[in-house]
Amino acid sequence: MSVHLVGAGPGDPGLVTVRGLELIRSCDALVYDRLVSPELVAEAPTDALLLSRDGIRQEQVNELLVSLGRSGLDVVRLKGGDPFVFGRGGEEALALAAAGVPYEVVPGVSSIAAVPAAAGIPVTHRGLSDRVTVVAGSSAAGNQLDYDSLAAAGGTIVVFMGRERAGELAAGLVGAGLSPDLPAAAISHGTMPEQTVVVSTLAGLGEAAESLARPTLLVIGEVVSLAHVPAREVAAGRIA
Amino acid sequence: MSVHLVGAGPGDPGLVTVRGLELIRSCDALVYDRLVSPELVAEAPTDALLLSRDGIRQEQVNELLVSLGRSGLDVVRLKGGDPFVFGRGGEEALALAAAGVPYEVVPGVSSIAAVPAAAGIPVTHRGLSDRVTVVAGSSAAGNQLDYDSLAAAGGTIVVFMGRERAGELAAGLVGAGLSPDLPAAAISHGTMPEQTVVVSTLAGLGEAAESLARPTLLVIGEVVSLAHVPAREVAAGRIA
Repeated sequence: MSVHLVGAGPGDPGLVTVRGLELIRSCDALVYDRLVSPELVAEAPTDALLLSRDGIRQEQVNELLVSLGRSGLDVVRLKGGDPFVFGRGGEEALALAAAGVPYEVVPGVSSIAAVPAAAGIPVTHRGLSDRVTVVAGSSAAGNQLDYDSLAAAGGTIVVFMGRERAGELAAGLVGAGLSPDLPAAAISHGTMPEQTVVVSTLAGLGEAAESLARPTLLVIGEVVSLAHVPAREVAAGRIA
Repeated sequence: MSVHLVGAGPGDPGLVTVRGLELIRSCDALVYDRLVSPELVAEAPTDALLLSRDGIRQEQVNELLVSLGRSGLDVVRLKGGDPFVFGRGGEEALALAAAGVPYEVVPGVSSIAAVPAAAGIPVTHRGLSDRVTVVAGSSAAGNQLDYDSLAAAGGTIVVFMGRERAGELAAGLVGAGLSPDLPAAAISHGTMPEQTVVVSTLAGLGEAAESLARPTLLVIGEVVSLAHVPAREVAAGRIA
């Protein structure tokens, strides 16, 4: 096994998996995203090659992983959240497969449920939501979201990278029939000490998100009525 | 902090979080679900109280957590996957909050992306899927799924507990306009050594799922065309 696509989790370094941390601690090379916690990067062996992917195009990352893998190094590709949830891990996996480089995927805690949970919001809850729809607010393709099908979905809508388009998204959903009074929340830096939560309504979501720093996750649906910030020990910065 | 609602991850004990394992290893009482790996239960201190929730109604579990929490014990409630994704963790959290018992939620790796990943399927993939819709095939409420909005969603559909209703679900989705040739997969015991994957079409999904053991997750959408079982070291049974 030469390349491991590892999910770092939503932010708090204590939310990395046991298997993921074990791989970081024994790798020869670590290729990591900007949003990955520095505490996790610091867990790599002192003589490991550390490569930030910041400012490198996706195609170059794919090529980098292929050449590192071919050189026989034990490579960890550490990605925020889960590699296969808006993480473009699938593209890296295909590039490795096409090049004949063995790889494995080690899933991580995705922000889908973990970030809402850090604000006290269960994405599913009996009587309030039995469906979760996950979309990205901004995408490399600059795609237009299909508001009609999103509004018809019911349940909970979770929006990754939603800060910039929160107002447009909210207006689109109201235009497609959702109530402007539907509970909605914007959560910045979820699970981290600097986490900020703004609970609002769908109509107020644009303004709520504007005040926050990236990364921001949006949650829309009746479950947001359960929001609170639970008393919790912030595990950030501490790895057992 | 007295009660910790901890996600155990999708099956492979190596996919528990570092923070979750730390809490299991230091708890006074562990209340665990049937689907939780025995290797994780075995990580509790030898003098910890071990309580399987098997055969206990949800309301009784809530009461049990409240009384254990009130007694001042350090309690870990270990749930399969993520506590807030079809895990009824929200109900346990509300019961604890209502009783004034302090608690925290420690998210886990949900099956949403991890189980498809174990079959080589990324739930999002550029050009194939930029949306994920998550539903449960069977629910305590015996609800009817809304096939029209599901079929209109586009992207990837992930169905928890989908084995029993796979045929009915597939017929419903085809009736609502999805192509019977749409790629679909049924994955039993995802991430575990006994994992079984059947790749099919939407029309064949009922038959595919029938042959499998519970728990079975269904994945429907173009991303299933990327399915393969990646060469991977199965980490099951091994905790670093």
